[in-house]
Amino acid sequence: MTGIDWNATRAARVVSTSEMRKRARRLPRAIFDAVDGGAGDEVTLRENRRAYERIAFAPPALADAGSRDLTTTILGDPVSMPLLLAPCGMARMLNSAGELAVARAAGKAGTIFAVSGVSSYPLEDIAGVATGPLWYQLYLLSDREATTAKLARARTAGYRVLCVTVDATIAALRERDVRNGLEIPPALSLRLVVGALRKPSWLAAFVRGEVGDAGLGARVAVRDFVTTIRQLIGVTSDELRWIRERWEGPLVVKGVMRGDDCEELLRLGVDGIVVSNHGGRQLDGARATIEILPEVVEAVNGRVEVFVDGGVWRGSDVVKAVALGARAVLIGKAYMFGLAAYGEAGVDRVLEIFRVELDRTLGMLGCSCVADLNPSLLAKSSLG
Amino acid sequence: MTGIDWNATRAARVVSTSEMRKRARRLPRAIFDAVDGGAGDEVTLRENRRAYERIAFAPPALADAGSRDLTTTILGDPVSMPLLLAPCGMARMLNSAGELAVARAAGKAGTIFAVSGVSSYPLEDIAGVATGPLWYQLYLLSDREATTAKLARARTAGYRVLCVTVDATIAALRERDVRNGLEIPPALSLRLVVGALRKPSWLAAFVRGEVGDAGLGARVAVRDFVTTIRQLIGVTSDELRWIRERWEGPLVVKGVMRGDDCEELLRLGVDGIVVSNHGGRQLDGARATIEILPEVVEAVNGRVEVFVDGGVWRGSDVVKAVALGARAVLIGKAYMFGLAAYGEAGVDRVLEIFRVELDRTLGMLGCSCVADLNPSLLAKSSLG
Amino acid sequence: MTGIDWNATRAARVVSTSEMRKRARRLPRAIFDAVDGGAGDEVTLRENRRAYERIAFAPPALADAGSRDLTTTILGDPVSMPLLLAPCGMARMLNSAGELAVARAAGKAGTIFAVSGVSSYPLEDIAGVATGPLWYQLYLLSDREATTAKLARARTAGYRVLCVTVDATIAALRERDVRNGLEIPPALSLRLVVGALRKPSWLAAFVRGEVGDAGLGARVAVRDFVTTIRQLIGVTSDELRWIRERWEGPLVVKGVMRGDDCEELLRLGVDGIVVSNHGGRQLDGARATIEILPEVVEAVNGRVEVFVDGGVWRGSDVVKAVALGARAVLIGKAYMFGLAAYGEAGVDRVLEIFRVELDRTLGMLGCSCVADLNPSLLAKSSLG
Amino acid sequence: MTGIDWNATRAARVVSTSEMRKRARRLPRAIFDAVDGGAGDEVTLRENRRAYERIAFAPPALADAGSRDLTTTILGDPVSMPLLLAPCGMARMLNSAGELAVARAAGKAGTIFAVSGVSSYPLEDIAGVATGPLWYQLYLLSDREATTAKLARARTAGYRVLCVTVDATIAALRERDVRNGLEIPPALSLRLVVGALRKPSWLAAFVRGEVGDAGLGARVAVRDFVTTIRQLIGVTSDELRWIRERWEGPLVVKGVMRGDDCEELLRLGVDGIVVSNHGGRQLDGARATIEILPEVVEAVNGRVEVFVDGGVWRGSDVVKAVALGARAVLIGKAYMFGLAAYGEAGVDRVLEIFRVELDRTLGMLGCSCVADLNPSLLAKSSLG
Repeated sequence: MTGIDWNATRAARVVSTSEMRKRARRLPRAIFDAVDGGAGDEVTLRENRRAYERIAFAPPALADAGSRDLTTTILGDPVSMPLLLAPCGMARMLNSAGELAVARAAGKAGTIFAVSGVSSYPLEDIAGVATGPLWYQLYLLSDREATTAKLARARTAGYRVLCVTVDATIAALRERDVRNGLEIPPALSLRLVVGALRKPSWLAAFVRGEVGDAGLGARVAVRDFVTTIRQLIGVTSDELRWIRERWEGPLVVKGVMRGDDCEELLRLGVDGIVVSNHGGRQLDGARATIEILPEVVEAVNGRVEVFVDGGVWRGSDVVKAVALGARAVLIGKAYMFGLAAYGEAGVDRVLEIFRVELDRTLGMLGCSCVADLNPSLLAKSSLG
Repeated sequence: MTGIDWNATRAARVVSTSEMRKRARRLPRAIFDAVDGGAGDEVTLRENRRAYERIAFAPPALADAGSRDLTTTILGDPVSMPLLLAPCGMARMLNSAGELAVARAAGKAGTIFAVSGVSSYPLEDIAGVATGPLWYQLYLLSDREATTAKLARARTAGYRVLCVTVDATIAALRERDVRNGLEIPPALSLRLVVGALRKPSWLAAFVRGEVGDAGLGARVAVRDFVTTIRQLIGVTSDELRWIRERWEGPLVVKGVMRGDDCEELLRLGVDGIVVSNHGGRQLDGARATIEILPEVVEAVNGRVEVFVDGGVWRGSDVVKAVALGARAVLIGKAYMFGLAAYGEAGVDRVLEIFRVELDRTLGMLGCSCVADLNPSLLAKSSLG
Repeated sequence: MTGIDWNATRAARVVSTSEMRKRARRLPRAIFDAVDGGAGDEVTLRENRRAYERIAFAPPALADAGSRDLTTTILGDPVSMPLLLAPCGMARMLNSAGELAVARAAGKAGTIFAVSGVSSYPLEDIAGVATGPLWYQLYLLSDREATTAKLARARTAGYRVLCVTVDATIAALRERDVRNGLEIPPALSLRLVVGALRKPSWLAAFVRGEVGDAGLGARVAVRDFVTTIRQLIGVTSDELRWIRERWEGPLVVKGVMRGDDCEELLRLGVDGIVVSNHGGRQLDGARATIEILPEVVEAVNGRVEVFVDGGVWRGSDVVKAVALGARAVLIGKAYMFGLAAYGEAGVDRVLEIFRVELDRTLGMLGCSCVADLNPSLLAKSSLG
Repeated sequence: MTGIDWNATRAARVVSTSEMRKRARRLPRAIFDAVDGGAGDEVTLRENRRAYERIAFAPPALADAGSRDLTTTILGDPVSMPLLLAPCGMARMLNSAGELAVARAAGKAGTIFAVSGVSSYPLEDIAGVATGPLWYQLYLLSDREATTAKLARARTAGYRVLCVTVDATIAALRERDVRNGLEIPPALSLRLVVGALRKPSWLAAFVRGEVGDAGLGARVAVRDFVTTIRQLIGVTSDELRWIRERWEGPLVVKGVMRGDDCEELLRLGVDGIVVSNHGGRQLDGARATIEILPEVVEAVNGRVEVFVDGGVWRGSDVVKAVALGARAVLIGKAYMFGLAAYGEAGVDRVLEIFRVELDRTLGMLGCSCVADLNPSLLAKSSLG
């Protein structure tokens, strides 16, 4: 046994998040696709990304941003860069350390982890290893007592911010999952086994119960997940008011796709808004989030913080979003692929890639801190 | 012999209508292409579809559409969803049950079947098995007596609505058909046989006379088809007036591609307008129908019901069309591929796919019924 | 020897002009490319074609164009359809009958052949076999006596219209030709022979002197061609005035790409204007001709006839051009490929394809004659 | 030994600069990519090129540009055409003669060579072989004494113009380089050797010390390069003022991407502005340079000369840039590939290709000299 951390060594060689995505192909295809895929024809999935490419930079000629300060605050919590980790379900399908690894990586990187309401480790366990602030993402269930209990657990465990998802009140059909025969939890379905035979390391971990649902905690989590999915209800003003009354800390609503929703959300007392179409995984055909952002920023007019997710694969994307008024972005697939490829070291590396790219882009725009970013540094390119 | 309905079992595994299209490749290529292809360079065929992708959704954040009511009425007839089955000729080329299967499936699904004027079963036989309302689609012939006789037969058989097609008064050249050596009726031309050799199940049915023109009824239908094609005439105001005087029930005109045609159509007493370019199968270069729809809806201004067809492959397309003012959409190729792949069970499945997608999309838009749909839920995406 | 005309039989099976292009691949690649290729990166070549696809039809719903009259006149000459054959050089490289075949085919089809100033048969021989009106296309040479002599020959031979090309006063570099080692005349260069070895029928004809420059007449023509290319001069107002004074018949200028050139051209007494970028074979980057046409039509305002060429591959393209104000279109590559594939029968077939498509499109637009065409039948599609 | 210059013979057969790029694949992939690649996803790299294709020509019909005068002046220096050679680092990686070959070729072609601040031959050696005017490109270093020394050396060596690069103050990550394992200097890394094994001529020259860093001069240059990269600082108004005070000759700023930067630059006394995004090699997502040019030209309003680089691969691109107000363009990759493919003869050939294309395009636009070019000869094409 040597002291060499092979995962870290290999992760360090990964140049970009899109290369990390390729590394994640060590997973069985069904699992890879469950992270990678979107709803329907994946039009929104693709557009989330392409819309960033249609935004161009117009940097000033004379500027010296010798060193850049990437820090900011998110709802009062200081972070090392304007980026946090989005809630993604069932991380243990990818790696046995699941959300524990993600929480540790977020803490080391000095940023926030938004834990999914259908995490594959109990929220208390995740909080137990976390060294940075946590958000708790809530799916609204028909069973109010269950919801109340969840809120209490999150509060007790020290979660700082409650994030209510409003764009996933209907279960979507992700056709890749259906074609891959993916079941939740992934039992040893024929197709999964056939696919996994070509990925022996994942299969071995599955058989040992390290990934998948074999561990006791995971089994509980999975039961929880299935229950949650079945009880999803729509989030109305009444529901949101009910939650607002039961959560003292900052409250964020995730899944806003229209500027004209903001007034009501603010009236209901939300502290933050996440422009999101669930990464193109819910309503295919929904607008690209970076194209919605300016309209939401204008409607909110600085009264609360606005965030955005979907299609963020580059530090330059983060810069574009912040220049357009986002307080920070949430990344999802990018870190999940890091987790899938190299576990915690993979998440570390993804965060490092973002940090380096963010720093370099800021420097090239002559900005010495994120507060220097503004829309005048961008130009709608005519690329189309 | 077991009681297992293999077609239904297989059809149930099909995830989307585009997957159903792939399943329909069990047909000889010439027959597949006759359904799949368009006129000329197929520019309109492609654009009908792409134009839907350029329309984006802008769903509200706060909404609860716990359960959705998809029902509506079409010219007074209640239907289970805003979708009916477009007239498509010669269904028996695809499956021996032809239009009988389609009529049965439409009835089970609680919607309307618009029977083609060149159906491959007599209109009376189709009416005999139908359990839902039927439209009769009329091609205008130079022989007025023949037309009068057709109207009388349709009336007697209980067809509810007469649908006059105005965009197919000139026979189009579909180049795939010419290249495939497709003849109507499909005699055993060399190319067809060579193609069919690789599709033994279809060939066997053809040899047994189950598909193609071998059965007596089919032969009559085919003679009828050829006669019809040869006698097509243009539909003028005079012709339409003549028809209007001879049909007491609702009268629909199919093939409208301009808003400024509507005033005259309404003056002539039509009860419904179908925006259609014949699925890109007549005039290549015609505008995409979903892009024409708003202009027709505006011109009609609620005085009659407006429908649209062409490029509808998703429940979300139905939602877009209804949000833009269509009363309902007509689907054609999608159900024909269902018929080709798995007979009646295939049509059942296609209708089920549309229903599920429609329901889910409505829910994700926070609409509890189709009347809630409106243009404000859409945004012209900048995708290009 | 049977009486079967195999070329006519085979040509009759060709469905479209783009299929005819494929048939023309029986030529050695160097010769095929010399017809098919454009200048530079072939941006203009492609755009000429794509620009037609961006124009959509908006046909009226109620119309009966039972039979269509395609006839019109071109500078006073009656033609059977609004289409004439553009001047293309060196037709004998493609087929031994060269321009003689083209002239015969044009006559049979009831239209005009514009003979190239660098034809591979003497202009008198072409006039000798022609049964329809001819245009003579003139390249302006530095040697005025030579020009005068040319004009005299054309006048004596009965050419009706003089067409002065103004967009080819500088020799273009067509890179496919350079890469293919094409020389004019095509001597037995190594590359040509290697390419031709795979096309034995063309090679045999070349060796027999039927194609290429072996025949005496052809040799003279080739000498003429080379001389012409070397003496090309720019066409100024003075030059055009000089020509106008020496040609009594109608005078057409070919190669106009700006509306603001028209006033001066009319002042100088031209009778017709051809919007042309030389089929994308001269200045790569020039605008697509169908996009220039409306601006020229507006500037000319009906005072002379306006024509257009470049990218015309469908009868529907002809309809679009005429609807936008062109008196007629010129086709080039399309008939040259017919000539290459099946000689005179190939040209016959190409003209027949255009006629049938033109007739059908006119009918589908509800127009009973070409004069019914107008811009309101078109819509700028949003295809991009 | 014959007198045949094989490189010149082969170079003469190259038709276009893009073909020259293909010839440069004789280099090891790592070296080729180091020239060819861009930053990030290479969006800007591609757009620099595509943006030229979106600009169309609108040539006048009547014009005679019998012969064209391509000469102009650049900051007072007469040049044979409006094109100069951009500063590109480390030319000796491509060919043992490196910048010496480039300087000789520029001189023969009657144009200017802008020598990189990280050239692989000492600036004095380059000046020693140059027969035309030279620019010296300066990267601003934190070490002012080093900068002062550089300026003194450039002045002493007779460099005419100082060109300060402002868009490369942060080291970019070019991912192709990372993936190729490229180190500067290229030591015999495993990947490089493996790649080079398939390119024996380059490898042999590398082993002989003719390319790479083996020669003493080259070693010094490489040390210089590494030092420079490490000391890069941002260029502020103060820094530029400091330089302006220390350089008597013309001063050019390279890397301007906004019109609103110009006023300050002019106030600081610059004599020329190069619109540049570093060829897409620094900030991926930066706007295409030819789309920025008009805004800079308007802001400068004739007070100083404006240049542009990035995406220039055709003489017609040069014409477009000059028509939009550029005094001249800088080419980079194009001549570097010439150097890579055939050494000095390759650079000669690239310059000859540009000259011929430039001449022909000018002629086709009816311009007899570069001063005749103006924006009215262009049209924004609708190609998208």
